[in-house]
Formats: sequence, C-alpha cells, structure tokens
Amino acid sequence: MPQGRHFLQIPGPSPVPDRVLRAMDMPVIDHRSSEFAELGKTVFDGCQKIFKTNGPVIIFPSSGTGAWEAAIVNTLSPGDKVLMVETGHFATLWRQMAARWGIEVDFMPGDWRHGANPGAIQARLAQDATHAIKAVMVVHNETSTGVTSRIGDIRAAIDSVGHPALLLVDTISSLGSVDYRHDEWKVDVTVSCSQKGFMLPPGLGFNAISEKARAAAKTNRMPRSYWDWEEMLKPNAAGFFPYTPATNLLYGLREAIAMLLEEGLDAVFARHQRLAAATRAAVAHWGLEVLCLEPAEYSPVLTAVLMPPGHDADKFRKTVLDTYNMSLGSGLSKLAGKVFRIGHLGECNELTLIGALSGVEMGLSAAGVPHRAGGVEAAMKSLEERPQSNSPSHLKVVEPDRVADHRDG
Amino acid sequence: MPQGRHFLQIPGPSPVPDRVLRAMDMPVIDHRSSEFAELGKTVFDGCQKIFKTNGPVIIFPSSGTGAWEAAIVNTLSPGDKVLMVETGHFATLWRQMAARWGIEVDFMPGDWRHGANPGAIQARLAQDATHAIKAVMVVHNETSTGVTSRIGDIRAAIDSVGHPALLLVDTISSLGSVDYRHDEWKVDVTVSCSQKGFMLPPGLGFNAISEKARAAAKTNRMPRSYWDWEEMLKPNAAGFFPYTPATNLLYGLREAIAMLLEEGLDAVFARHQRLAAATRAAVAHWGLEVLCLEPAEYSPVLTAVLMPPGHDADKFRKTVLDTYNMSLGSGLSKLAGKVFRIGHLGECNELTLIGALSGVEMGLSAAGVPHRAGGVEAAMKSLEERPQSNSPSHLKVVEPDRVADHRDG
Amino acid sequence: MPQGRHFLQIPGPSPVPDRVLRAMDMPVIDHRSSEFAELGKTVFDGCQKIFKTNGPVIIFPSSGTGAWEAAIVNTLSPGDKVLMVETGHFATLWRQMAARWGIEVDFMPGDWRHGANPGAIQARLAQDATHAIKAVMVVHNETSTGVTSRIGDIRAAIDSVGHPALLLVDTISSLGSVDYRHDEWKVDVTVSCSQKGFMLPPGLGFNAISEKARAAAKTNRMPRSYWDWEEMLKPNAAGFFPYTPATNLLYGLREAIAMLLEEGLDAVFARHQRLAAATRAAVAHWGLEVLCLEPAEYSPVLTAVLMPPGHDADKFRKTVLDTYNMSLGSGLSKLAGKVFRIGHLGECNELTLIGALSGVEMGLSAAGVPHRAGGVEAAMKSLEERPQSNSPSHLKVVEPDRVADHRDG
Amino acid sequence: MPQGRHFLQIPGPSPVPDRVLRAMDMPVIDHRSSEFAELGKTVFDGCQKIFKTNGPVIIFPSSGTGAWEAAIVNTLSPGDKVLMVETGHFATLWRQMAARWGIEVDFMPGDWRHGANPGAIQARLAQDATHAIKAVMVVHNETSTGVTSRIGDIRAAIDSVGHPALLLVDTISSLGSVDYRHDEWKVDVTVSCSQKGFMLPPGLGFNAISEKARAAAKTNRMPRSYWDWEEMLKPNAAGFFPYTPATNLLYGLREAIAMLLEEGLDAVFARHQRLAAATRAAVAHWGLEVLCLEPAEYSPVLTAVLMPPGHDADKFRKTVLDTYNMSLGSGLSKLAGKVFRIGHLGECNELTLIGALSGVEMGLSAAGVPHRAGGVEAAMKSLEERPQSNSPSHLKVVEPDRVADHRDG
Repeated sequence: MPQGRHFLQIPGPSPVPDRVLRAMDMPVIDHRSSEFAELGKTVFDGCQKIFKTNGPVIIFPSSGTGAWEAAIVNTLSPGDKVLMVETGHFATLWRQMAARWGIEVDFMPGDWRHGANPGAIQARLAQDATHAIKAVMVVHNETSTGVTSRIGDIRAAIDSVGHPALLLVDTISSLGSVDYRHDEWKVDVTVSCSQKGFMLPPGLGFNAISEKARAAAKTNRMPRSYWDWEEMLKPNAAGFFPYTPATNLLYGLREAIAMLLEEGLDAVFARHQRLAAATRAAVAHWGLEVLCLEPAEYSPVLTAVLMPPGHDADKFRKTVLDTYNMSLGSGLSKLAGKVFRIGHLGECNELTLIGALSGVEMGLSAAGVPHRAGGVEAAMKSLEERPQSNSPSHLKVVEPDRVADHRDG
Repeated sequence: MPQGRHFLQIPGPSPVPDRVLRAMDMPVIDHRSSEFAELGKTVFDGCQKIFKTNGPVIIFPSSGTGAWEAAIVNTLSPGDKVLMVETGHFATLWRQMAARWGIEVDFMPGDWRHGANPGAIQARLAQDATHAIKAVMVVHNETSTGVTSRIGDIRAAIDSVGHPALLLVDTISSLGSVDYRHDEWKVDVTVSCSQKGFMLPPGLGFNAISEKARAAAKTNRMPRSYWDWEEMLKPNAAGFFPYTPATNLLYGLREAIAMLLEEGLDAVFARHQRLAAATRAAVAHWGLEVLCLEPAEYSPVLTAVLMPPGHDADKFRKTVLDTYNMSLGSGLSKLAGKVFRIGHLGECNELTLIGALSGVEMGLSAAGVPHRAGGVEAAMKSLEERPQSNSPSHLKVVEPDRVADHRDG
Repeated sequence: MPQGRHFLQIPGPSPVPDRVLRAMDMPVIDHRSSEFAELGKTVFDGCQKIFKTNGPVIIFPSSGTGAWEAAIVNTLSPGDKVLMVETGHFATLWRQMAARWGIEVDFMPGDWRHGANPGAIQARLAQDATHAIKAVMVVHNETSTGVTSRIGDIRAAIDSVGHPALLLVDTISSLGSVDYRHDEWKVDVTVSCSQKGFMLPPGLGFNAISEKARAAAKTNRMPRSYWDWEEMLKPNAAGFFPYTPATNLLYGLREAIAMLLEEGLDAVFARHQRLAAATRAAVAHWGLEVLCLEPAEYSPVLTAVLMPPGHDADKFRKTVLDTYNMSLGSGLSKLAGKVFRIGHLGECNELTLIGALSGVEMGLSAAGVPHRAGGVEAAMKSLEERPQSNSPSHLKVVEPDRVADHRDG
Repeated sequence: MPQGRHFLQIPGPSPVPDRVLRAMDMPVIDHRSSEFAELGKTVFDGCQKIFKTNGPVIIFPSSGTGAWEAAIVNTLSPGDKVLMVETGHFATLWRQMAARWGIEVDFMPGDWRHGANPGAIQARLAQDATHAIKAVMVVHNETSTGVTSRIGDIRAAIDSVGHPALLLVDTISSLGSVDYRHDEWKVDVTVSCSQKGFMLPPGLGFNAISEKARAAAKTNRMPRSYWDWEEMLKPNAAGFFPYTPATNLLYGLREAIAMLLEEGLDAVFARHQRLAAATRAAVAHWGLEVLCLEPAEYSPVLTAVLMPPGHDADKFRKTVLDTYNMSLGSGLSKLAGKVFRIGHLGECNELTLIGALSGVEMGLSAAGVPHRAGGVEAAMKSLEERPQSNSPSHLKVVEPDRVADHRDG
C-alpha cells in the first residue's frame, strides 16, 4: 500500500489543484438558466485570454482526441490533401485520424527527436504551386517526445511562400504552460484539452478558430453533427451549449483560468521553463540522454529520457511506482521501453519537482540503472539561478567557489 | 439572492448525491496504471448490470448527444434507411442528426403526447418486404414530453414480422430510473449518458451494443474515429481507454453504480414510479393536464404539465425560480411556453418531491395561474399508498373515515 | 437503506451548506503564518457583525457547552450567587454546570412553556438590595422547548432597578437566526456555538464579552486556563490564537459569515420567522399543540410539538426516520417521549420546510397518530402570505373566494 | 502569489490526506441517531488500537491544550504536588497550566536538548518517601525541540522505587507516528490531539485513561464540568457524547484510523524513523546542528535545527516561504530565531521529504546562510538504505565504489 501523497509526474493528466477540484465539487445547475449563462460567458472570455485570441473558442465535452476530430471535420473535405510532420506518436495518431476521414496526408518523416522543421515545410509548400495542400497540421508540443515545435516560425514559413493552407495546431500538452499565440501566429484551428496546462481532470476538448477556418467550415464537405462548430457558436454567443455541457468541468475551468491569470501567463511560462531546465540539468548529471536533440525545442512541460541500452524503461517505472509512489510517463509506440517521460507541468513547483527528480534518481539506484548520483543537486543549482526579481532580499550571497569548497569538505 | 438549498427539478441533469460528488473530488490518476485498470473494469462490470447486458458497454467522454452519434456512425452507412418515431423534441433532434449523416429517415409522425406505437411500427416493417429499413430508432423516455415508449413491445413487433432491422434505443433519461433490459429486449444499441439516472454530472456517453450491432459496425461505411467501437473495445478489455478518459467522472460512476445496486434496481424503479404517480396526483388535483395521454406510457422520471390557455410556462418557471429557488424544465420546441416539466429522478425521494410540488403549487399562486389548491396533499396521499413491505410496523392504523372526519373538523 | 437526500430537521446541528463544507475542505495552513492572521482577523471582524458588538468575540475550539463554561469561569467566583430561569432542559444543564463550579444558583422555576419573565426577574433583583446576585444568566432560545426569551426586556428589567448584575446570555440556537444585539442590549457575555445559525459543523464555541465582563474577569477567583479570555485576547489582536485553533472550521466560519451578510441579517431573521409561522400553521391544522404557550415567545428556529396522550414521540420519530429519511428532534428530559421538535433553522428555505412538514404529516399517518390532514397545505398558505416586496409581479391574483371554490370542487 | 502545492512542513498541524478531508466533507448527522452511535463506537474502538489500550479513550471537542487541562482537572487536587521535566516549551506551558490549577510543580530543569531523564526521575521519586508527589507528567515528544523522551524507561524508573504516582504523558505530536503503548507502559493519562499523527485538522483532544486514573478522578477535588471524564464515559459506552461532538472531525478520525491500520502501525513508525534519519543526514551534511543531543531521543516526527550564529531563523523561514512556498516551524520561546523546525510526520513520504529538504537547502542559499551543499543528496542516500523487505526486486545492484566513481566523474 503506497504511503503519503502520490507524485503524478506523467505529462498529463496533470495534478488538479485543490481549488479546481473543490470548484468542481458543487451541485450541478440548470444548463438553461441565467446562472449558467454567466458561467458560460466567463469561461469563453477566459479561454480567449489563454489562447490569446479575439475569436471564438469552442468547448466540447470530449477528450483532446475529440478536439482533433473537430478540427478535421469542420475544415477539410474527403480527398483533401494536408501536410503533417512526424514529430512523434501523437502526430502519427492525428495522421491516422485524418486518414480515417479520407484525408490524403503528406507526412514529412521525422526522427521523433526534433520538432517540425519550418524550412522543410516552407520547401514543401513552395513546391505546391496548385495549392493542393489545404492545411498544415502540426503538434506544438509532442507529448510523446518532449519536443516543442516552433509555431511562429512555421507561420512565417507558410507566409514566406504565400501559401493559403490553413494552419491547424495541436496544443494539447502546451496550452497554458508554453507561450502560445493563436491570433498573432495566425493559427486557424488550435486544438487543446483540459487535463494538462489547464490543470483540470480530463473531459473537455477545445477548438480556437480563425475567421478563415470558420469560412472553410461553411463550404467543406464532411459529415458531422456533434463536432459542428456552427451548432455550437449559436448558443455559445449567449453563454449556452447546444447539448448538455460538462457543467462541473466548466466550474473547474473557470477556477483554473482564474488561477492562471492570477499568476500571470508570462510567469506561468517562465516557471515551466525553469522547471524544465532543472530537469534537464538532472538528466545530464545522471549521464542520461534527453530525447530531444534541439535545445531550441526542449519542451517546457515534459522531459523524455532515454534509458541506457539493456535497461527497460517500463521496469524502471514500475520500480519507481512501487518504491516511491510516483507515476512517470511511459515510452509510446516505437519508444516503448526505451524512454520514460517526466511531466513537470500545470500545478508543479520547485519543491514538487525536486521531490519528483529524487524519485527518479533513487529509482535509478533501486532499479540498478547506471547513472551518476547528484542529479537532484544539479537540478537545485539550476533552479537557484532563476532571477529573483520579486525578492531582492533573496540575492544569493554564497559565492560559487565557496560552494565548491563546501563540496570538498 | 436565493436562500437555502436549490431544488433542481429539471429532468436532468439530476442532482448529484454527495457520495458521488465526493468520489469525484479526488486526485486524478495515471490512466495507464493498474489502479486505473481496476477502476475501468469495475465500471464496465457495473454498467453491464445497469444496462442488463452481458455484452460490452462503451463509455465515451461526451454528452449523450455524442452517444447518439456513436450509435449511428458505427452501425449505418450513408443512404441507409431507418424508421424513427416522432415522440417529441429529442426524437426529432436524433432524426436531424441521422439526416446529417446521410441517413434516410422514415419519420413516423406523432403528437408528442404518445409513445412509439408498436403496432404502427409492426405495420410499417411488414410493408418493408425488401428489408430496406436497416434500423428502428426509438427514444425510450422522451425527456421533452414525459412519455415512455414500450421497448419490449416494440421488440415483439419487430420480431412478429421477422424483420432484421437493428433496434437502437435512446435511454438517456430512463436508464437507471426505469426498468430497462438491453439483452432481454434484444436491443442492438442502447444509448445513454451520465447526468440522469446515473446521478452524475454531465460528461459521459454510453453505448451498450449487441453482437449484431458489432457485426454491423464491421461492415458499415461511415467515416469515424473518435466514436469507433472497435478502437474502444480493444483497450477496454483490460480496463483501459484508447484516449484519455474522463477519469474523475469514472470515479463518480463507480460510486453511483454502487448506490444503485445497494438500493436494488427494482427498488429504484419502484421509487421512481411512486414519485411519478404522486406528481400526477398533484397535477390532476390542480386541475392541470399531464401532457402524456397514455397511462401505460407515463414517464417515471418527469412529468410534463400543460399550462392553462393564456398563461406562459416560462413566465411561471421564472416566478418559481425567483420566489422559491427551484428550477423546472421548460417546454421545448413546439411546446415552448406551453408546458413545464417536473423532474423527479435520480436522487429524488418523497420529501424532496413534496418540497418540489409545493414550489409548483405556490408558484402557480404567485404567478396567478388558475388551479385548485390541495395538489400537494393529493401527492402525499398518493405516496402514502405505497406498500410498506419492509416495515410492517408502519402499517397505517388510521381508518379512512376517521381521516375524513378530521378533514371536516 | 434510506434513499435520496436526508432531511436533517433537528434544531441543530443544522444542515451545512455546500459552500461552507467546501470552504472547509481545503488543506490546513500554518496557524502562525500571515495567511492565517488574515483569516483570523476576517472571522473576528465578521463575528462582531453577527453578534452586533464592537467588543471582542472569542472563539474556542469546543462545543457550545465549553462556551458556557468559559462564561462562568471568567466572570464568577466560587460562592457567587446568580439568578437563572428554568426555561427548559438547557437552562437546567447550565445551572448544573454553574453549581459544579461552586456557584449558588437562584433558579426561578418555570413550566418549560414560557420564556424568562422580565417582570419576575425585575422583582427578584429589586429584592436584592445588597447586590448579592452577581449575574443574571438566561437562555435566549431554549432549544429544548422552542421558546425564545425577550433579552431586550430582561435588560430593561435589570436597568429599571439599577442592579449591577452581569447579564450572561446563551444564544446557542438563536445567533445568526434570531434578532440579537449584544451591545444594544448591554449583554455582558453572549455564549454561542457553530452548529446552528452559523450553519457549520459542531466544534466552535463563542463568547462575546463586554468591557464590564472583561473587568470582572480580571478580579474573579476561578481557576482556569483553557478558557481564559485574556490568554486569548492577546494573540487574537493580531489574528492568532494561543493554542492551535480549529483551522478548517474557521475557513467554514469565514464563508458562513459571508453568506449571512450577503443575505442580510434582517432578511435572515425574517426568513426564520416566516418558516416558523408556517410550521405552527401546520401544527395547528393537525390539531396538535405547540409547546410554547406565549405567542411573543415562539421560537423562529424550532417548534416543539406535543404528542397526543397515549402516543410516544420517539416511536413516531423512528417511523419518520425509517419511512421518510428525516431526523426530528426528541423531547429532552422531562419532555422525553412527549414532544418532538422540528428544526427550521440555518440553511432552511420554503421548499425544504414543506418537504419536512410533509414528512411529519405522512409520519403521523404512518405512526397512527390522530391528526387532521392538511397541515402542509396550511403551511403553504402561511408561506404565501409573505410580503413580496422584491417581486411586484408575484402579487397573488387568485382571489380568496376563488380558492375556496376550488377546494369545494 | 505562491505557485503550486504548498509544502506544510511544520510539526503540526500536519497535511491532511485527501481521503480524510473528503470523509469530513459530508453532511452532518443527528448526534443522537443510531447512525451516529455506529460512528462513535467505531472511533472509540479505533482509538484503543492507536493508543494501544483496552481502556477508554475520551475525545473532546478541543485543542490538545484542552486535553492537557482534562488530564489535570480529572486526576489532581489543588495543592497537589507533581513532578515535571523541563524538556522544552510545551513542558513549560503544561507546567504553567498546572500552576494555574493550584498544582505545586517540582519542575526538573532541562537544557531543551535532552528528553526527560529516567534516572533523575527515579532519584527524585526515591527521595519522596511520603509519596507527596501525586503524578509524574512528561511530554513524550517535545514539539519545540524534536526530542522524544523514553516513556517505557520512565515507567520502569517509577516502578523501580515503588512510587504510586500517576504517570501523565503528553503524546500530542507523537501518537500515531511514534511507537507508544498506553497499557504496556502503564500510563495513567495519555494526552493527545487530532492534528499531528492522526493527520486531521485541529479540533479534537484525547485522554486515554487507566483504571487508576479513573479511580483518582472519583476522589480528586478540582472543579470541572466540560472536561469531566465520567460525564463523557456514560454516553460514550453507547457511542454517544454528553454534548454535541465535532461530528465531521469524527468522520475524519474514522478514516484516518483506517489509514493508519491499513498501513500498519509498525510500518507507520518505521516510515517516520526513516524520514527523520534522512532529515538528520541532510542537516549533518549541511554542517548544521540538530538541537537534540541524544541520539536515542531523536524525534521521528520533527527535527529542530540550530541556525549558525549571526543568522536569524525566522528571516530564513520567511525566505523559504516566499521563495519556495514551504512553511517551516519556528523556534519557540527561548529558541526563537535560533532554531527552525522541519516537520516530517503524518502523511509525509520519501519524495515529499526530499522536496521539503531541497526547499531548506535552497532556502539556506537564498538567505545567505553558510552551509555545505549536498544535504539533499545525503538524505537520499539515507533513504536508500531502508530495508527493501517487501520488494526483493528492488535490491540495489549498483556497487558503492561504482557510485563513488560516478561522483568523481
């Protein structure tokens, strides 16, 4: 029987803050009442702030997978061609979904260790003189690999060749944790869900949509009903939904948005960067390898770590779970057994992260995985480098060499 | 500002019991863990008991509308013909959805005051010598009208003419409150959701499926991904889901199923019948009319009441909400303003019902709607007639004439 | 197994609103932190508003019984003489407690059906030329009888004879539900607790204290430590407590005070009067007798009802509990088996009350207690007479004779 | 605004597990019902298991301070002489309380760095030929110093001189975390409370009492009412209380006891020892000093750490709170500013502890307190030495020298 508080360090669902859980733990209300309309309007307004858009954000009672489907069926037609990039497992799944809907996918191969290459996208689009490609579909943060693609650069690549393709972006594991700008980057459909940066339980899917996407939805030919945007947008304008929404998750969404805005999105993003850097410092010290090969693409929300040859990641994860009551993410698909993933998103803070990293380090020992001890300490050093802007009294007065002296002592 | 506990007497979402809310108010867990697998298996097993089936029950993160869509896209193909019955607003919406998916619907007209007519269905199927009709789609309990169709009889009607059509039944507002037997009635797809008889917040959709339905899903031609049964059934067998499930709603589902089974399904059904009969007794006493015209089809979960001519149901409902802090259901579509609906399902018990009916009666006064006072008392008399099987000491010893004497005094 | 929501209609603990329970359902914090100090100050300020005092309100981790003891040990000395009035069971218990502390109690006998008589108190004090009586101790609302004593009149009685006795008042079941004015009535110690008008779980005791009481505490001779006011007041000034306070109950207290002030104390008091009047209307209609004999002293928070001769109140209460899932208060001490008590305080509203009264009426039937049916209807009529100040559209348009016609129909 | 989950590492109140908080977050019930009686009996039975006694355990709605008072007023008489030991701040407070009750305290001086000395107690009792000393009163775990006195040895000391004094023991911060045996050690009154090892919010005080203590209570002369044991024991026998108990805290107590017994008390004690040893390893590595000077008396529940000269502990604690969102315990009384205290009790586990220790280590840096980095790593090593009895697969296969190699790399 596991003791004490479980450390849920998978890359989502992320731990749900008490404030959010308690907001959800209230009686359900009439979804046709003025009290509900107020709730609806509040969450729609709040979502615009998080997605950084002035356009509509649609909320489905669904998983993120449903929001993927909504993006496809509202904008594309059977036989349409799209450009996708094999950033990892989830890009591959989204591609399979597109194929099931009769979309022809030009799937740019990848090694699962890099993000989508803006230059390669640019080159491919430049070749598409007839504008056969109707959409570019990219995963912002590949949850399977811990690699974040540069959406702003991808937008620039598309624009540089004057290609009219829609830009569809999966921000399932990035939204609310990683800097993201729906309007500024002219994204046409941003797909997201509740259980990562929003710090909610699973059960809500999101589509933020541009005018261009909405226009495409009016002419595309794809059968749909549940996911139809226009059906949603009509009642949404008044704060309502066309069918019974997941009311209690919306209570939680209202609270979670309030928390994100209280902290300030920039502070949230900086915190995730800080925690991710500390995690990588630990991994490097252990002598293990981060899956992501491009520093500019390190994920702020999770770190995928390669196991040394001959060691099984899942066996290691089980050891950690049994011994230290912590869940880590598994390697997916072709990475199964080869990587484990450390989630450091959502409600995570410095001390929680160090607790988690200590579980990894002690777990490596317990599982007999070769590594260099001291990773946790390296992570602490990394965290201590953060700018102490709010608290001048916290300036570090211990000089570096003095620290070194200590270690020799 | 409303005072005290709100009475949520809409026909769903129904009030969520404290036990269920509290079960949901727990940290989310890793949806790939053995702890989750145990949860998954428990709710799948439990659902079989509630749907009364030995076959699979699929649980979607969705509203009930999503479960409607799943039933269609897994069993039918574009151009297929189906037989539906216009029992009310929700039957009409389901028909519209089918049409959006390219289904040709033979929509038997109805007056919104009767259930689906088994004889008429039989006649229609008898004429379909070529078996062009691929499915009969019926709403078990029309939430918009308070009329319950007789599914067992409809099954008999189909069988009597040896028609091979699938039988698809919407039990969105009946399951867990009204006697229902997926296997015994050879239903092929039973559609349901979380926020009615299951006493959960909205956010889960259900499909119970027969072998015949599953076979149909293997050959039908309808694009789908999110709703695809086979994708679900594979991981479901081990207690898992193909995409992130709505974990906390599943916690609640486990608790709600436990509560239903603790009370016993037959006792649950009898309680709903008792509360519904009491409600109708009140309505009759008030001199108002129940929308449902067929006593054998009175809904056990809600009662739709016609307003006297010249009185607006929504104005009345607003008076009740403002004055007595109670939500009633509105008339939908062509019934808008003409009926109000009293929900008496899920966690409802005798005293809650009487409180609710008193709010209706006092609201009729407050809104100036002509009626005969004493409906609440009539409901109480109705409730007192219940068999006191469990408690022989509760046998009523006050003779009827003595009671009459009292009333004269 | 009881079904649906339990009706807790005892005169305290009263049902705890969801908002209050959820406020309590949060992690405990460091009781020496600035975050705690803010909580402390907020509840102290709020308590002053509820007790209507500018002086200190002390909060003990204790039951109301503890707050009784605190009032005694801080103001009196062994051998002191006090004047108390036998209003019922709780006055008798408080008297016993005083005796245990060596206080000589002049206990004015009562019939448990009237409040403390201001004239009799005046007469007794007038005889006390030496001012041997150090305190007058009265129960504001006798929870055992449903009789509310007139504290303002008692204060006038004391003043009219210029007697310097302290005035100690038990408001355990009245505070936050019944009009009460610590400063205006020059009460020296007001004793209260959390689980009645404050709508909290049990666990907090209160003493609001006058300057005169505080001065008495500085010279009295009674051993004490836990209950010592001065020990509390020092840290209280900064929002802290001398020993670990019941933090989560304080969270709830903050929320409960906010709720009372949102509704407005006058509105809260009027609501309790309205519910109590409706309850008495039902009792009168049933042909049963309210224990309280003085209309000016009817309790707004509970109604004690006499059983007809030959019928046992506790057997009746058991029938109600088993059959209708409602708890009623028992007769206490010499009233055991002879009365039952209906609580209608705290979160109670109109529909909840009617539900509760229907449980009494149906319970009377089920238990074979002679009564006239129609009490619930009488209560409804009573409730409908409330001034509809906020909602002019709610004016009743059904003329009385028309209603009478209906009843004959 | 602090981010993420707060680390509450004070030596109580300790963090309340979600299971316990949720158990408390339920409607209050009638404290005179059979449902309550079942709750009462369950917690009384459970308490006996935790206190390791077959005698009664009394539960007060109070803080632990109240339970101190109850122990005194039930067993002693004004003028009685007792022997107490100055183990720290709380022993001093208990002594002050005793003095307020007219007890003459022989207060054996201490340096706040050692536990009560069994030999010294024996010597003092041996001199007391007339048996003037009525009780020996000792604090088991001094929360202000992190020193645990050896109660078994003290019992032996008392017995060795055949002294009849009662033995009163404060287990406020030890019960449920540190091995304790009320019956085996023939303790007469064990005092405890809810917010430490029981992992509950504050609000309950406990007295476990021996037959000898109960006999003393029948003849002692100390005024009391609220705390009177006999008043409690009568209704307790049936599962009830003489006055309204703190019902929701009792719900939590039931759940907390279940959790302790599920883990097994021996496992709970071993876990606390393990966490405490790891904490001390960190402190030693930092080059700081643990306040407790006697290894046999190291507290398993908290570690008090001396600040280097010239550094203020409270300033350090503020830095930790502001920078790392963690609460540490302050130095009390003469230790103010000189020590900080790390709580590692109750729900604490390995990863939480490491997170907490990292907050201390990084806080030392941020506050400019000289120390040697690497304390967290030392704590991890300490934790890894735990016997892996349940999980043979976890045997460490990394040889020590190989680890050393790593560190040199």
